[in-house]
Amino acid sequence: MTYCVALKLKDSIIFMSDTRTNSGVDNVSTFKKMFTWSVPEERAIYMMTAGNLGTSQAVINILDEQIRTGDETTVSLYNTTSLFQVANLTGETLKEVISKNHQGGDVADPSFDATIIMGGQIAGEPQRLFLIYPEGNFIEASDDTQFFQSGETKYGRPILVRAFNPAMSIEDAVRLLIVSFDSTLRSNLSVGLPIDLCIYKNDSLKASLNWRFEASDLYYINVASGWGDALKKALKALPEFQLPKPEE
Amino acid sequence: MTYCVALKLKDSIIFMSDTRTNSGVDNVSTFKKMFTWSVPEERAIYMMTAGNLGTSQAVINILDEQIRTGDETTVSLYNTTSLFQVANLTGETLKEVISKNHQGGDVADPSFDATIIMGGQIAGEPQRLFLIYPEGNFIEASDDTQFFQSGETKYGRPILVRAFNPAMSIEDAVRLLIVSFDSTLRSNLSVGLPIDLCIYKNDSLKASLNWRFEASDLYYINVASGWGDALKKALKALPEFQLPKPEE
Repeated sequence: MTYCVALKLKDSIIFMSDTRTNSGVDNVSTFKKMFTWSVPEERAIYMMTAGNLGTSQAVINILDEQIRTGDETTVSLYNTTSLFQVANLTGETLKEVISKNHQGGDVADPSFDATIIMGGQIAGEPQRLFLIYPEGNFIEASDDTQFFQSGETKYGRPILVRAFNPAMSIEDAVRLLIVSFDSTLRSNLSVGLPIDLCIYKNDSLKASLNWRFEASDLYYINVASGWGDALKKALKALPEFQLPKPEE
Repeated sequence: MTYCVALKLKDSIIFMSDTRTNSGVDNVSTFKKMFTWSVPEERAIYMMTAGNLGTSQAVINILDEQIRTGDETTVSLYNTTSLFQVANLTGETLKEVISKNHQGGDVADPSFDATIIMGGQIAGEPQRLFLIYPEGNFIEASDDTQFFQSGETKYGRPILVRAFNPAMSIEDAVRLLIVSFDSTLRSNLSVGLPIDLCIYKNDSLKASLNWRFEASDLYYINVASGWGDALKKALKALPEFQLPKPEE
């Protein structure tokens, strides 16, 4: 499993992903699920993958090879003129990889599906954020829904729904994400540390801050251990329940 | 979908269940999922059902008919001598109903599964709490795990994992459950109000407090609306994230 979240703030997009992959609980590994492409002053593109690791890696490799070995007629992440086109190219590639895996051969895994969260900016456009489905189609974050999750989304969702606000600061958003990730990590063994963080600042048009929270990261440890106490205090602050008189 | 939780406290067991059932989002109804049987001074048995409503209702009806129409040789909820036997009888009934539904006929629904949380007390035994699976087998709450959830368990789990403590008061436990239910209700339309609450006090050996939180319940509204603010305050109390210097 995997947990990825992207938050679209007023002046930035924050991407966070875990790094655990597993094929059964006895086959657990660490793989990066966060990928970045940038042409300074021209474009910055971020992707986070969730789902079948073979599918995810194939898609990323194909997108990379289009850039490296394509000629001027090849459509690639470096010559698309909008993030809509990037989403289109990524979705088509994802769909092709999945469809190819399903053709013939041993079907070892019932699902080759993967989902991709993609965001960033291309010069001339504002920042944009997309969720790309295994079917190849996609949706874009709007004013009403300014964040996307993928993978094991449920445990970490209530805190996002309650506390996320696009006007919050980058620092507050990172703290919120750490809490959302910690709730997920505690409940699902197949989501695990380290956690990757990327922060894209609007109009910077370059791959910016890239940070990894290891299991030994003091900030992560403090937030995770402080959150239990903070929650208990928050509960205590709510109105007390009065036991109604039992009907005798 | 459904959400049911039972918490085993030091001196009581608290049961809470929602009342929404749906077959598609355009076919939503309210059904009680909480059932009680008691023989004063002798036994008190509580069940909460999650899963296929036809299966759940059939099981409850069969258990009821065994009591009403059985002769002295019929094993029923009223003559079992331990809650282990109650779990056994319920599990066998559940398994038979599911297996019968799968024999012949139109298979309109891919799953006839249901899960039952059962607890209470029979004179001579301490209070006990069980989770009964569609396969008919079951597990009992132990000192290490003193609560069970069924149905849509993920959204409401992190707060239980963080804040539940068997030594907490009944009032605190009900408040915690309301928060756990509210997190679930906000995230999954197929879990809905009203919410049923039963509190069994150890050694009372009678069906005790039975309470329903309607959508208009002031306590529920206050906790649900206060929780968003309480969470935001709790987040603010955590250490602030310091943006590391970007590597240039």
